[in-house]
This record gives sequence, structure tokens and C-alpha cells, in this order.
Amino acid sequence: MTEKLQHEKVLRDPIHNFIHVQDQLVLDLINTPEFQRLRRVHQLGIASSVFHGAEHSRFGHCVGAYELARRVTDHFEKYYRSQEAGDGLWNPEERMLTIVSALLHDLGHGAFSHTFEHLFNTDHEAMTRNIIMGDTEINRVLSAYSPEFPNKVASVIAKTYSNPQVVQLISSQLDVDRMDYLLRDAYYTGTKYGEFDIDRILQMMRPSKNGITFDIRGMHAVEEYIVSRYQMYLQVYFHPVSRGMEVILEHLLRRVQELQIQAQRNDWNETDFVGPLLAPLFTGEELTVHDYLRIDDHVFMAYINMWQDHPDPILSDLSQRFLNRRPLKSIQINPQTDQYLDQLENLVRDAGFDPEYYTARNDAVDLPYDDYNPLAKKPRTQIDFVLEDGSHRELSELSALVAAIKGRASVDQRFFFPKEMLKTGPDELFAQLHRDFRSYIKNDTLTPPDK
Amino acid sequence: MTEKLQHEKVLRDPIHNFIHVQDQLVLDLINTPEFQRLRRVHQLGIASSVFHGAEHSRFGHCVGAYELARRVTDHFEKYYRSQEAGDGLWNPEERMLTIVSALLHDLGHGAFSHTFEHLFNTDHEAMTRNIIMGDTEINRVLSAYSPEFPNKVASVIAKTYSNPQVVQLISSQLDVDRMDYLLRDAYYTGTKYGEFDIDRILQMMRPSKNGITFDIRGMHAVEEYIVSRYQMYLQVYFHPVSRGMEVILEHLLRRVQELQIQAQRNDWNETDFVGPLLAPLFTGEELTVHDYLRIDDHVFMAYINMWQDHPDPILSDLSQRFLNRRPLKSIQINPQTDQYLDQLENLVRDAGFDPEYYTARNDAVDLPYDDYNPLAKKPRTQIDFVLEDGSHRELSELSALVAAIKGRASVDQRFFFPKEMLKTGPDELFAQLHRDFRSYIKNDTLTPPDK
Amino acid sequence: MTEKLQHEKVLRDPIHNFIHVQDQLVLDLINTPEFQRLRRVHQLGIASSVFHGAEHSRFGHCVGAYELARRVTDHFEKYYRSQEAGDGLWNPEERMLTIVSALLHDLGHGAFSHTFEHLFNTDHEAMTRNIIMGDTEINRVLSAYSPEFPNKVASVIAKTYSNPQVVQLISSQLDVDRMDYLLRDAYYTGTKYGEFDIDRILQMMRPSKNGITFDIRGMHAVEEYIVSRYQMYLQVYFHPVSRGMEVILEHLLRRVQELQIQAQRNDWNETDFVGPLLAPLFTGEELTVHDYLRIDDHVFMAYINMWQDHPDPILSDLSQRFLNRRPLKSIQINPQTDQYLDQLENLVRDAGFDPEYYTARNDAVDLPYDDYNPLAKKPRTQIDFVLEDGSHRELSELSALVAAIKGRASVDQRFFFPKEMLKTGPDELFAQLHRDFRSYIKNDTLTPPDK
Amino acid sequence: MTEKLQHEKVLRDPIHNFIHVQDQLVLDLINTPEFQRLRRVHQLGIASSVFHGAEHSRFGHCVGAYELARRVTDHFEKYYRSQEAGDGLWNPEERMLTIVSALLHDLGHGAFSHTFEHLFNTDHEAMTRNIIMGDTEINRVLSAYSPEFPNKVASVIAKTYSNPQVVQLISSQLDVDRMDYLLRDAYYTGTKYGEFDIDRILQMMRPSKNGITFDIRGMHAVEEYIVSRYQMYLQVYFHPVSRGMEVILEHLLRRVQELQIQAQRNDWNETDFVGPLLAPLFTGEELTVHDYLRIDDHVFMAYINMWQDHPDPILSDLSQRFLNRRPLKSIQINPQTDQYLDQLENLVRDAGFDPEYYTARNDAVDLPYDDYNPLAKKPRTQIDFVLEDGSHRELSELSALVAAIKGRASVDQRFFFPKEMLKTGPDELFAQLHRDFRSYIKNDTLTPPDK
Repeated sequence: MTEKLQHEKVLRDPIHNFIHVQDQLVLDLINTPEFQRLRRVHQLGIASSVFHGAEHSRFGHCVGAYELARRVTDHFEKYYRSQEAGDGLWNPEERMLTIVSALLHDLGHGAFSHTFEHLFNTDHEAMTRNIIMGDTEINRVLSAYSPEFPNKVASVIAKTYSNPQVVQLISSQLDVDRMDYLLRDAYYTGTKYGEFDIDRILQMMRPSKNGITFDIRGMHAVEEYIVSRYQMYLQVYFHPVSRGMEVILEHLLRRVQELQIQAQRNDWNETDFVGPLLAPLFTGEELTVHDYLRIDDHVFMAYINMWQDHPDPILSDLSQRFLNRRPLKSIQINPQTDQYLDQLENLVRDAGFDPEYYTARNDAVDLPYDDYNPLAKKPRTQIDFVLEDGSHRELSELSALVAAIKGRASVDQRFFFPKEMLKTGPDELFAQLHRDFRSYIKNDTLTPPDK
Repeated sequence: MTEKLQHEKVLRDPIHNFIHVQDQLVLDLINTPEFQRLRRVHQLGIASSVFHGAEHSRFGHCVGAYELARRVTDHFEKYYRSQEAGDGLWNPEERMLTIVSALLHDLGHGAFSHTFEHLFNTDHEAMTRNIIMGDTEINRVLSAYSPEFPNKVASVIAKTYSNPQVVQLISSQLDVDRMDYLLRDAYYTGTKYGEFDIDRILQMMRPSKNGITFDIRGMHAVEEYIVSRYQMYLQVYFHPVSRGMEVILEHLLRRVQELQIQAQRNDWNETDFVGPLLAPLFTGEELTVHDYLRIDDHVFMAYINMWQDHPDPILSDLSQRFLNRRPLKSIQINPQTDQYLDQLENLVRDAGFDPEYYTARNDAVDLPYDDYNPLAKKPRTQIDFVLEDGSHRELSELSALVAAIKGRASVDQRFFFPKEMLKTGPDELFAQLHRDFRSYIKNDTLTPPDK
Repeated sequence: MTEKLQHEKVLRDPIHNFIHVQDQLVLDLINTPEFQRLRRVHQLGIASSVFHGAEHSRFGHCVGAYELARRVTDHFEKYYRSQEAGDGLWNPEERMLTIVSALLHDLGHGAFSHTFEHLFNTDHEAMTRNIIMGDTEINRVLSAYSPEFPNKVASVIAKTYSNPQVVQLISSQLDVDRMDYLLRDAYYTGTKYGEFDIDRILQMMRPSKNGITFDIRGMHAVEEYIVSRYQMYLQVYFHPVSRGMEVILEHLLRRVQELQIQAQRNDWNETDFVGPLLAPLFTGEELTVHDYLRIDDHVFMAYINMWQDHPDPILSDLSQRFLNRRPLKSIQINPQTDQYLDQLENLVRDAGFDPEYYTARNDAVDLPYDDYNPLAKKPRTQIDFVLEDGSHRELSELSALVAAIKGRASVDQRFFFPKEMLKTGPDELFAQLHRDFRSYIKNDTLTPPDK
Repeated sequence: MTEKLQHEKVLRDPIHNFIHVQDQLVLDLINTPEFQRLRRVHQLGIASSVFHGAEHSRFGHCVGAYELARRVTDHFEKYYRSQEAGDGLWNPEERMLTIVSALLHDLGHGAFSHTFEHLFNTDHEAMTRNIIMGDTEINRVLSAYSPEFPNKVASVIAKTYSNPQVVQLISSQLDVDRMDYLLRDAYYTGTKYGEFDIDRILQMMRPSKNGITFDIRGMHAVEEYIVSRYQMYLQVYFHPVSRGMEVILEHLLRRVQELQIQAQRNDWNETDFVGPLLAPLFTGEELTVHDYLRIDDHVFMAYINMWQDHPDPILSDLSQRFLNRRPLKSIQINPQTDQYLDQLENLVRDAGFDPEYYTARNDAVDLPYDDYNPLAKKPRTQIDFVLEDGSHRELSELSALVAAIKGRASVDQRFFFPKEMLKTGPDELFAQLHRDFRSYIKNDTLTPPDK
């Protein structure tokens, strides 16, 4: 069993001012190598190539989610303490599980998460559970607290834990994870539209029999949160320029995969161009937790730096584009432009670029309010309000704004191509080719903001 | 010659809201590989191990200093445009030189600047000039603007340019560099005391015959800036915990140097454990600009990651301490404690730690208002105010607060040692040793804040 | 003709940091008695009885609207200066007219505007024009600048001025008036949802042939502004508790009117209970500009203070309720409740309250995006964006959020009654009456937030 | 005895976001007429004539001080709960007394406090106690809670209550009163230098045997608070322009006093020109609590409005200057200027202004850190820190900045005169007189900022 710290430790945090660490267990978890690794994984990955302020790591987000969980559970304990089982109120014995789950919920995130998961067929949520259950410091610290604790934390992350209050605080339409990352990303990008009234929302949260509800007096603060989230997706997370960088990264790593396969097939000596830390990624076997934890942003970035000198022209070129921030350009795919994409690909090939590496069709999709991941077959979750007379109402029944965007996917499909295709200089030989290309895309009126 | 951009480009910035890029030259400079490299060098280095929010890179700071220079020169051009040579007013022809110098002033900063410069005997200011004058994209872009432009920018950085207005805007007690980094570091650390009224200061700046002065009506805003700077040094830049991490980094890299020398001497095969990008650091020859530019934070961090497995026990241990954030502890050196430091070192050695790698005496020194670097033999600079009757007064004559801290170095000298020395567990064998150690340092009442 | 001030004057402002006064004319206008009077008229009237932070006067709003106009016109002059008549760009000669109109646009507002206009049949916009054209210091200062200037300013206020750019900057869906008051009211109430990115919007404004348009890159900032406005109306301006205070004020002043008429009819000596400053309100004749300008919030408040001792029991009771903040309670009128309102009125009468003074049916109506005042027969105005290819699109075509609330009136109809009707104490005599009353209104689930 | 509210009430507050009202007693006190009156008394009086944003009332400040007291006592109760008498920790039974005293501490403030107290020989602290002990709603509500409660609250206000923890929370160098007003005044004036880290200070407060101490880890936050306070005094509270308005107000009211005395002596019919609410001020007898409470800012402002038409030329002129914001100008009194003041007075008289009403010598004095009121014979109070080893240190021993301003009065002595004395127009007759006047004061280089 753990004990309270004699003096709480505080971490200065720009979003929540201070993170209050009051338990030896929480302090010990923060001090594990697995948790410290989160300092070496950026929260927003490549988005900082557009929003240069947003270079923050997952470490801050994780302690931030913890801090919100700590505040909510303190509030619940003070005002909604359960008197008897099944009364729908808050059982203070769930406190430690909740704050620890909040702290550890993103432990499995690796470098450039989405690209990584896609290419190497991993899943950060599964990896989080593996780290919690595996041969790690995290597991040893949790087990020392109580033998069944790793398993309980893993079940909260997996959303299978029996108490829906705990599960929904960590993962739902309005959980400590989302609240922290929206505020944090808004702060670091400098985009004001991501702000909302976190204090008000925390005060209006209520435990209930089915999980978490909100007092009707917090309706407008929740509405503001949904609108903020909607705007952050459209303007930050879907930004076409950072997606133009992501495409380069993905193609670059795919090229490494292919070169590595060729090298192995040919028994080349060159197998080690990925070095000891990256090598496990390219063996074809499943990554061990130990190997996974050694790979952070720095490792990728250092190798991309070296690959600038690689003899393969595509790999070295893509590495240089990536490091020197030369994103692929893009146009929106819509009924007007869709029909021309094959021609565009041909023109790109004619200009000497392999379309497999220099073009892409990329969708950005989000449901601003409905379900966490519309592609997954998860049950719908909703934000519920409790009215003064005790009855419940769902958010979109109360808010015209939310009703307007509810269940309506924000979709931005784009075709990416090299900026060189737009070149206008005195390029005699390919002048006609560039003119053709530009003429195809001139109707794309919804061009990227700012850049 | 350059031209104005038809549509200005804006970069969203959390400190200044937007960075306005209005000239093709500025845009081209930002797009060079040498400038993009600044994204891969942290502004505050290891300080983010204490202030986790402060993970920002030098890129943001450099465009921020540019933005402030742009605003000042626009303001000067509108209100203080020179009519004839020698009238002490502002010559609009200096605009481009000023904003470009502000943009490029930190170009030569490398990974973990202070540690790096100390160990590898480099100087970031000289390196900035080398990058500007050398075989680089930066040089090509500047030369294309005008052949003598690289030289002019380098002379501003070197403080030898003839117009003191331009030099002082870039480098003085109250320049665009300091103003940006104080605001930026305060924002990212989340420490409110670093804030001051930048708008007011910018409005109160005046060109004069000897450089830059301030309207007396801005006195209190300048006073607030000096106090902010004083507090940032004491609380952030001198923080004993991040210095405890810095000591580890420095010792770790020194260990690599020594192992590398041994390896070369023994003609070991192991020379390449530093890899192609770091190798030039350890040849003993001077670094070329090209080699220097390839080394960024990621390269160091990736190697430290690998060195965790290095057969040398000191190197692998220090690498683990560094990555897993296990700083050396410290006590203040003062007349009381000074006499015991040798004994402490002996106790550390008795506990099995080589004092050369596991202890350090480290001074943090700053003059909050006097001269940029008290150790350098630079001329004193001062902040001057112009009064309504046209006479001048120096800041500390006007402000009791500034007078109180003027010319008074803030010094914090510390002795660093492994945290294990404080251990209190049932460690039969060394129990007496730890007791002795703790008894020596019990008088250190000025313990680190927050952590 | 006016001249530029040698040194600009600045007013410290919490919203815009500084208000920059650069012209002698503007300074002279601010120093007129008619403009200084705005310090004595609250911006939000009775709303500060709910949002206690919002006790700011119209003075700050007027200089704030001026400051925004100054920034926009400076921006237009720098980037969109007209080359020839009819090119749709900005003619710098319109600058002074624009900033002066912004400064003076609310000059005619009196104490408790809406209540006042309703009861005394005045119109603040007409009054603004009367002050500009009448025998006032404002008129003298404007005329000294140029004889036709008063008339031009009045025509901008009346929206009849020939240049639609100037008119729309002062009065449209997105004008300097609205932008300032939303930001200002959000700041003073402390409600974060009123904030939006003013810098971005100002940069994205463009002059055009038909008035003002916005660059497409500012779409999301404008969207955020519309949502902010929507939330401010629902949560601040329509707040049922401040409307419960407004009803009291209106009834109180109506009672004075009636008592005054009786007094005059009876040739009572008591006619002067309204004193020399208020008397002109009750003569039945039209108010002169001079008399109007003498009446400010203080005069009303001082008289209401005295009327607490008035022999008329209704007047003294309403005065006490008003000063001691005892608002009428309310329920929403909806199809469910509508049918019972007559019964409720009867119960109120049975409890001893004259329903004419102690009940009210009050509507709050706003169109968040469509037309400034849906009741007026004004032409529709819309927010237009100019795309990269030069074509135009209207806001609600681009924004799903705005489309959702477009043209859809926010309506909140309420029935007001004395709080005493809800009383639950041991009130033998009227116990049944109170029980009846409460049973009627128990279905009103949408009760006021916070209070 | 009171009870907890079933649902807490919250007031939206721009400084603390929300004021949480959790006790029926606190709610009942806020709803008394005496407390609601604070809405009609400005916090900063005439200072809003310079800082137009600062039009807030004492109501907000009082609920803000309450909120800080609530947070501190909650924090003490959670972390420093007393186990036995005399252990120096916090006795939760003091909670209600503390938060109520914070709420009511400024209850006795009247219109234009300092001017009022000076002219009418009152004392707001004594008046606060009178309201608490007198025949008022406040007294009735407090007595209903417990018969001895009014007396206990009054003793806290009088600083005679036995528990120094409670007294110092309400009134000391760093109490809830000062913390709230500095933050609030900084917010409303828009001056950033008044900000400090309130959250940090609240966390670092500790109960001790002698009252309140601070954890050493909060030293820099306290230092920042002292510097903020110092800057607010110099720049806001001492502003020469608002003192130039205050002089007018004081002279104006003195003129009324004298006219009233003459009127009474002559048995004029004109006695009632001060009206029923102001009359008690001019009888020469002591003000009753009841009469005092009827006088608010509005009453004064309404009468000054009427006095613009008064037949006495001095009264009507001063009234117009006051309402139309035409402050007296001033110069600093220093050894250089002191000797000429008599000549200046003569020149003012020669120009037709009665020096008794149109000139003044006015001192603004504050001790930024030492004792609340240096003129009173109160015991010194100091800010104490408790170090890790349990020993105590006083603030100025730890902070060079505070040592620099400690015990050092900030003094600004000024001579005030009509702006007309500086007139430069073609005023043949008095041209020489104005020239003489200006020549005397030309050495006054420390002119007012901003205006």
C-alpha cells in the first residue's frame, strides 16, 4: 500500500498552473523510465511544422490528464460521496485507480503515432496495456501498491472495468484526456478557439449510476467545449500542410521498409543502416515491449538525418524534404477534381517523380460529437445532463449548435503532389506539363489557410 | 534585390499571436535548411526536465525576435523617420538589415548550447557568423539579395556595424532577443513572473544618435522587464535540479571523449560507437560548418539512448540517469559548507562513485542589469531614458528597484552529488557513511523550490 | 482643419491595452462634456446585478470602438490604398470621418437605455444625431474641423452616407461597435465564451466596392465571433434574473409617470418630487438635447434612493426592491405554461400584489446572424468572404455552425412574478394560495443558471 | 445556527472566475441592503477618470476577499487541521468567522472614501463596526446565526480578536483584502504589473502560533506580490491626474459646507439645496448609521450635476470641472520648486482664481512593505517564512528586491493649479503672467505618465 506524501510535490504547468502530486505511488510512476520516455515523444507530431509553437511532448499531457482526474475525484469525494453501494454516487476507493489510469492512459504512444501505427501495425492502446502488464518498472511499481492493481488499470484503459464512472472519466466524449489535450494544444499552438471554461465543466460533473453526467447549469460550457473541439479539428489537426509533411514521413519509412526487405533478400551487408534501435521494426516479427520503448522521436529523427546521405535517391530526397520542411502540396478531392486525379498522377510521373512516393490520397475524418472513433465498432457514448427535476437530457437536444454538427463527419480528402508541379519559371522542356497540371487544379478554391 | 510578398504570410505564434512575413527575403531565409534546423534545437535545453512545459525550440524564438524587430522598425519608420544624415532619427534603409539580423541572430546555436560550447570549445556567435559567411543556403539567399549583405549581417551580429541603433536593437540590455526569450520562456514554463508589457516598451523605444533610448513614460514598463528578468534567472535559468541534469550531461559527454581517445589510441574497432554524425566532434580537429549543422538535439539524444547499453559502466549509467531523469542532488556552497566539500567528495568515493563523474562544483552567475556577459570584456551598456526636456537619465537613477539589483551579480554556487548519498533505507554496510554525509549538509536551508 | 498631435496620447484600456489618440480633433471630442457624460452611463445597465464584474460605462466602449476603427483604417491605408476612384479600395480621406463616427456612435445613449427608450419614447440613434447637429460642444468641435463635418458624421450614424465601406465599419453584422462590446462585455462579466480572435479579424478585413468583405483565410475567426455573439446573447444579455430587475425598473418609472400625472391634474404641491433634472421627462413635451444630456445613471439612482421614502406604497416598495436587488422571479412561457398565466396573475392579485406592477410578460429576441434588428425594416446585411480566385461567398455557405443558427431567432419569453409567491414558511392564511402557485410552475425545468 | 446550502450558489467573477457561496449565512449577508449598497460605491473612486476601465464597485472586491478567505480556510482545514489547542494549526471552527469577516471588512466604505473621511471626519473601519453592531439587517442576520457573532466579527475588523491567524488573514501585509484589491484593480485598470501568482501564494500560506507564515517555497511569489504592490501605488493609486480630480472634489464639497453654514446662519431658505439625503452631512452633528448608509456615489454625483447651475460661481465652476473631467494640473514639490510655491499661488490669485479653491499641496505616501498605515500607531507586522528546518526568516532578509524598498516611503508631493495657468494663446492682458508661471515650473521633469 502506498502512503500520502508528507509534502506534496508540485510541477509547474502552463495549462493548469500546478500539477499536485500527493501520493507516493503517483510520484514513483512519474519517475519510471517508461513514463519519462514520454518526454521524448511529441504530442502533436508533425503539426509543429505548421504551428511552430506546438513542440510539447506527451509527458505534459499525461500529467495534465492526471491533474484533471485528481481535481474531479477530489470534488466528487467532497460533494458526492457514496453512502451505500448502488446509490450512483462516488466511492472514494476508486480515487487512486482513476488518477493512475489518467496518468498512464497514453503510455503506449510512440514516435509519430498515427504514421507509426499504420506502417508497423501497432496499436497504442494495446501497447499501453502491455507496458502496464509486462516486465517493466511501471508494472513493478503498480504491483507493489497492490498485486491486482496492474490488471485493474489495464481494464480501465481497455474500458472493461466494471465501474462506468471511472471508465468514462478516462475515456468518453468529455473525459480528462480530451479536456487536457484540447486546452494544451490550443495553448501551444496559440489558437484561441481551443479554449473553454474547464473550471466550470469540472464543477458541473456528477457521478451517476450509468457513469458521468453534467448539471444542466454547465450546458453552455459543454457546448463551448464541443465547438472548440470542432474548430481544433478543422483548423489544427486536419491542417493540409502538416498532412503534406505526414505523407512524406510515411512514404519515407515505407521506402526504408522496402529497402530493408531487399537488403535482407540479397543478404546485403547494409542491413544495419537502420541501427540497433530501429532494427526490430524491420524484422517482420512482432515488437517486444522492451524494443518498442527504446524507439522515440529522437531515434527516428537522427536516422532521417543520416538517411539524407543514403545512396537510395528516393530515401535521401524524402529525408531532406522532411527535415527541411518541404511539404507536398495538395488540393481537395471533390466531385469536380476527383475525375482528374489519374491524369494528375500521370503528369507527376512524367515530371520524373514516382507517384507511389510523391503523391497520395489522404482523408482526414472526425465526428465532432458522437463517438470517439467512428471507424471502430464501439458503442455510442453521449453527453448527458441532469435537470433540476432529476430528469436527463442529451446534449444535442439542448444545444442548437451541437445539433448542427452532431453525427456529421468532418471530412477533408486531399490529393498530394510535389510543389515542383506548380513551378512557373522558364522551364522550357516541361513548361507545358506544368501548365497542364496547374490548369487541372485551378478550381480548388478552398486552399490552405495561413501558409 | 528582394520584393515585398504580394500577400504576407503569417505564422501563428503563441507569444505574439502572429508572425508577419512580408518580404520574399525573409521567407526564403526561413525556408533554408540551416534555419529549419533550429526546430531541432531546444531553446532551454535541459531546463524542461524541471519545467516540463518548456520544450520549445529555437525556431520560435528566432521568428519571435524577428517579429519584434519588424514592429520596432515599422514604428520607427512611421514616427521617427530620419530627414537628414546625423539627425539621430531612423533611416528606413536599415529596416531589412535589422529584421534579418534579428531572424538569424541565433543561427549558430547547437544542441545543449552551454554544455556543448564548454566541452567542444565552440562559440555560437562565431558559428552564426560562419554560417552566414560560409558555403550555405543562408549565404546564397543573402548574397542574392545583395552581394555585401552577408557581411553586413555578420557585422551586426559581431556588434561592429557602424549604426549603433541597429546593433542595440539586436544586442543590448533591452533588445529584441532578450524581450522575446523572456516572454517566450515565461509562457512555456508557465511562470507568470516573466511577463512584462511588451507593447508599452515597443512604443516607448526611440532612435537616438548613440543608439536606442526610451521615452520616460515607459520607465515603469522597463523596470518591470528588469525585475522579470531577475526573477527568471533566479527561478528558472539557475534552477538547481536542471543544473543537476546538466552536470550529468557534461560528464557523460566527457566520458565519451575519453573513451574515444582511448579507442583511437588502442586502434580499437570501437571508434564508430559515436556514428558518422557525431564523429567529427571527437577527431580533435576543428568542426566544419557543414558537420556542425548536422548535429542537433536528436542526434545526441539518440546516441545517449544507445549508450545505455554501452559496455563502459560509467557511460551507460550516466546515460540512464540522463534519460530517466535522475539528476544529481546539490547543496549551496557557502562559507559554512565550503570547508566540508573535500570530505563529502571522499564519502562519495567511499560509496563507490568516481567523484570526477559523480560530483561537481558549479556556479550560476548573472548580472540582472549591467552588462550582457560580465565575464566578457565588452563595453558596458545601459538603458537610457529621454525626459520631456530632452535630457537623458540612466535607468538605475530613476528606479529604486533597479538600483537595488544593479551591478550585483546573482550567484548560486553548488556542490553536486548522487542522490544515493542521502539514502535512508536499512543499508547496514554503508549506513554510517550515509549518516555522515547527511550530517554535513543538514544546514543547507535554501533547498530547491518545487521539486 | 485639425492637426496630428505632436505626441500621441494613450489611454490604458484593459481590452485593447492602449487606446492611441493621434489627432487633435479626437482629443477635443473626448474632452467635450457630452462625451465625458458617457462615463456616467453604464454599458450593460442592470446586467451587473447578475454579473457583478460588469459595471463598466459606455465611455470605455466608445473609445474602444474608436481604437478598432483607427486600426482598421491604418491597415487599409497601408495595404489597400485606392489608386483611382471606383477601384473598390480605401480612400485615406475617409479616415477621420470613420474614426470620429466610431467614437461618437453611442453618444445618444442614456441611462438604462432600453427601459428609457421604451418608456419615454426616445431613440438613442436619433439622439446621437441630435447631439451631433445640435447646440453642443461636440457640434462646435466638429464644425471647427470643417463646416460640413457634423452633417457627414450624422449621415454615417444614420447609414445614409454614400461610401458603404465607412457605413459598414460602423454598423453591420461585424462592425467595430459589435466587436468592441462583445470583447468588452466578455472581459467585464468574466465569461470566456465571448472571446474571439480580434487581431485575426482585423487583418482579414478588406475594402470592396460594396463595402467590407473578409479574406477567406479569416473564415474560422469570423465563425468564432458569430458563435461568441450567440453565446453572449443567450447567457448574458437574456439572463432572466437581470430581466427580473429590468421589469422592476420599468414598472417603477411607469409608477412615477402616473403619480406625476395625477399630481399635475390635482395641482398638488408634490410635482417636484422628481426634481429639476428629471422633471423634463414628465412634462409630456419632447425632451430637448440639453435636458436629455443632464440625465445620467446617477440622477435616476439618486431619485430611486429617495423614493424609498415616498408615501406611495408601490413606488417605495419597487424602489427598495430595485436598490436591494430583489428581482422578480420568472418562468418560461411555452405552450405548456401559456394557458395558466391568467390564473397565475389572479393568484398574484389574491396575494395582494397589483399585477400591473408585479407581473410582466417579457420577450428577449435576437437573431445571432442575419440582420441587426429583426423588428426594424432595415435591409439584410451579410458577411461576405472573398476567395483566392476573387469570387465571393456568404458566411453561412461556408460554415456549418453559422448555417445552424442563421436566421433563427433566439427567443426567450418569460412570465415574471414576485418571489413571495414561492414562499414556503408557516403562512397559514395563504398557504393554499402559494401551494397552488407552485403547482402551476413546477414544470419549468429551464431555470436560470447560477443564481 | 446556519446550514450549508444544498446547492452552492456561484457568482461569475472576472478575477477568480467563480465566487462559491456554500453557506446560508453568507448568502443572507450578501442579500442585505447594507451589503447591496456596496454596488453603489466605486472601489477606486476618481481613479477611473485616468484609468477608464476601473469603474468597478466595492461589491466585487468584498465577495472576492470572501472567496480568497474561503479558499485559504478550506486549504488549512484539509492540510493543517489542529489536533489540540495550542499546536499552532488551524481550528476549523474559525472558518465561518473568517469568511464572514472577509466579506464584511469594507462594509463601512462610503462614496469617495478618502475625501469623505477627511472632510466629514468619519472612519470607514469604525463605520464597518457600527453597521455590524447597529440596528441593521447585517446585525440581525449575524445575531440569528449566533448572538455573540456580531461582536466577534467586529473584533476581527478591529484586530482585537484573540486568534492572530484570523486577524492576519483579514488584515496584515499579505491578507485577503490586499490580494484581492491588487489583482482586481490591475485587471480593471488593464495594468499588467499588478498581477502575481495568487494560486501559489494561497498554497504556501501556513497557520502558525503567531498567526500566518509562508512556506519558503513561496518566497518568490511573495516577492512578486510586493513588487506588484509597489508598482500599483506608484503608477495607479498616486497618479497625479486623478489626484488633480480629487482636489477639485474636496474643494467643491468644502465649498458646499461653507455655503451651507452661511445659509444656516442667515436662515436662508436655501438650506435644502443639499436635499434630504445629503443634509445630515451638513448639520454638524454626528452621522447616524442609517443616514450614512443612504449616501452613495450616485447621490453625490446627482447633486454635483445639479450644482452646475448653482448661483455660487465657485461651486458651479468646480462642479463643471469635476463632471467634465478638467483636473487641476500639478508639479512635483521638491527643494527646487518648493521655494516658488508662494509666488505661484500669487500668480494664480492674480489670474482671478481663489487659491483656497484652485490650488493645493497634496502628498501621496505609502510604505510598500512595512506597516499598513505608517501614520497610525499600529504594531509593525511582517511577512515571515518558515524554512525546511522549521526556522523562520523575515521576507526582506531573503529578498534583495524587498530589502531595497523596505521601510522606504514612496512619497509624491505635488502643487496643484488650474490648467489655465499654462495657456499659450493670444491673451494680451495676462500673457506676462502666464509666461512667469510657466517659467517657474519648467524644471518639473517628472511629468505625469500617459496623459
